[in-house]
Amino acid sequence: MALTMVAFPQALARAGELSQRVIAQALAGQDDKISQAMGYAVEGGKGLRAFLALESARLHGISAEVGQYPAAAIEAMHAYSLVHDDMPCMDDDDLRRGKPTVHRKWDEATAVLAGDALQSLSFELLCLTDCAPQGRLALIQGFAQAAGVRGMVGGQAMDMAAETSDVPLTLEEITRLQAGKTGALINWSCEAGPMMTGSDASAMHQYGSRLGLAFQIWDDVLDVEGCAKAVGKAVGKDAGRGKATFVSLLGLDEAKRRASELVEQACDSLSVYHGDADCLREAARFVISRSN
Amino acid sequence: MALTMVAFPQALARAGELSQRVIAQALAGQDDKISQAMGYAVEGGKGLRAFLALESARLHGISAEVGQYPAAAIEAMHAYSLVHDDMPCMDDDDLRRGKPTVHRKWDEATAVLAGDALQSLSFELLCLTDCAPQGRLALIQGFAQAAGVRGMVGGQAMDMAAETSDVPLTLEEITRLQAGKTGALINWSCEAGPMMTGSDASAMHQYGSRLGLAFQIWDDVLDVEGCAKAVGKAVGKDAGRGKATFVSLLGLDEAKRRASELVEQACDSLSVYHGDADCLREAARFVISRSN
Repeated sequence: MALTMVAFPQALARAGELSQRVIAQALAGQDDKISQAMGYAVEGGKGLRAFLALESARLHGISAEVGQYPAAAIEAMHAYSLVHDDMPCMDDDDLRRGKPTVHRKWDEATAVLAGDALQSLSFELLCLTDCAPQGRLALIQGFAQAAGVRGMVGGQAMDMAAETSDVPLTLEEITRLQAGKTGALINWSCEAGPMMTGSDASAMHQYGSRLGLAFQIWDDVLDVEGCAKAVGKAVGKDAGRGKATFVSLLGLDEAKRRASELVEQACDSLSVYHGDADCLREAARFVISRSN
Repeated sequence: MALTMVAFPQALARAGELSQRVIAQALAGQDDKISQAMGYAVEGGKGLRAFLALESARLHGISAEVGQYPAAAIEAMHAYSLVHDDMPCMDDDDLRRGKPTVHRKWDEATAVLAGDALQSLSFELLCLTDCAPQGRLALIQGFAQAAGVRGMVGGQAMDMAAETSDVPLTLEEITRLQAGKTGALINWSCEAGPMMTGSDASAMHQYGSRLGLAFQIWDDVLDVEGCAKAVGKAVGKDAGRGKATFVSLLGLDEAKRRASELVEQACDSLSVYHGDADCLREAARFVISRSN
């Protein structure tokens, strides 16, 4: 697999397929219910995080043979978080990626265990990344931090707390919540290349932060404007619950304008990579054009 | 912290305290509910796995300053598994280590998230182990495998499946179940020293396998003979459910005899370490004398 740049839609599709293939290989020979649920939970993801990790790797001279492991790891981690977040005691969703959620297709115990094992698997896959040991350790340490109580789980916990609070979140709080809940893993994906090679991660960090925030604002826009069929999960839930979102705080037009501005700023962050980062610029624009 | 050997009860107490202190330090500055639940879930553990990791490290020339991170990591991983296993959709237990379980003290969402974040934290702690990079990577890779669907989660899933099956497990199946559910993490703890130093792990592997099996047989004995107060969790549940256990398959006396035999075999596995492994021999004998 060469390091040549391809157009974004093809690169995204390839990242999604590649990461799902790596995960399927890791589960090969397992015919138990938990392994089936793990494979099911990973299927049908867009693979955006895998794409970002692969593209960040490519920009830093790392091949897809090596980059496919962090790409698969981030998709496994993301899938675990969705399986647990969908559970009745959390967001209580029946539909994910247009299919029944894991606890609906199987049961809650299977959802707990499949999520748990997907998290373990994500670290197992990361250990297969054939870069310098220090690079691999940097990936793993950053990954654990991004996933934990100061990252993704912390953001999800803030989100849960907001559900039962009478005081709606401020814009600052919702931005901090997002930085944990979805931002931490997106940032890690964007910084995977610099981490593997020990290079300066500041440009990719800035790109990832802006992209992650634009992504979440657009999710809130879709919750208002999308239809469940296109989005592949329940929509209108946030508005129905009277929950503060970027749209409720900024208004629909301003939320869209802000997302668009962040995308342009994200593209600007990549100036050190010149035209070689055009695929990442396309990805940023995709984030605010997607309908699911 | 010197590499001198102390008697087992002191070494166990020290391992428990040390691992809890490392975890508390990692959570310092966090005042959110999830972090509180994480700390709570770790409290009161005997620290047997931490002790095994520290002692395995010591036997291979690694100080407690270094070994405290794998020791804390294994306790965090173990604690996450207990938090999730206790949930209503799993074993549905109200009591753990003599205290209300996390989902009883808080709620189910907190139990899911605290467990998830404890698993992430366990990898974060492992990354702090200041041994050679290759040793640290071996620890992490083995840890992820031991925790996952081919290890601990796989064993727990077999256990859940057995609950609803009309056909009781055979001795072979229950042994395989145990090797995953409790054996994988115990084995990893025992092999931590060889993994860090790149030494031959065969003696510690054999010790760990025998110890783990004896441990589980003794748990089944306690489920029949113990009282809830001493054990610190519900007892008599397995018998009440008509579930196959080592005791139901072997009978109480034979189960005890088998556990005792395994402990002596575990001690024999340590012959290469001569008297230097006496504390591990004491630990093995402790496993079948404990009342909780």
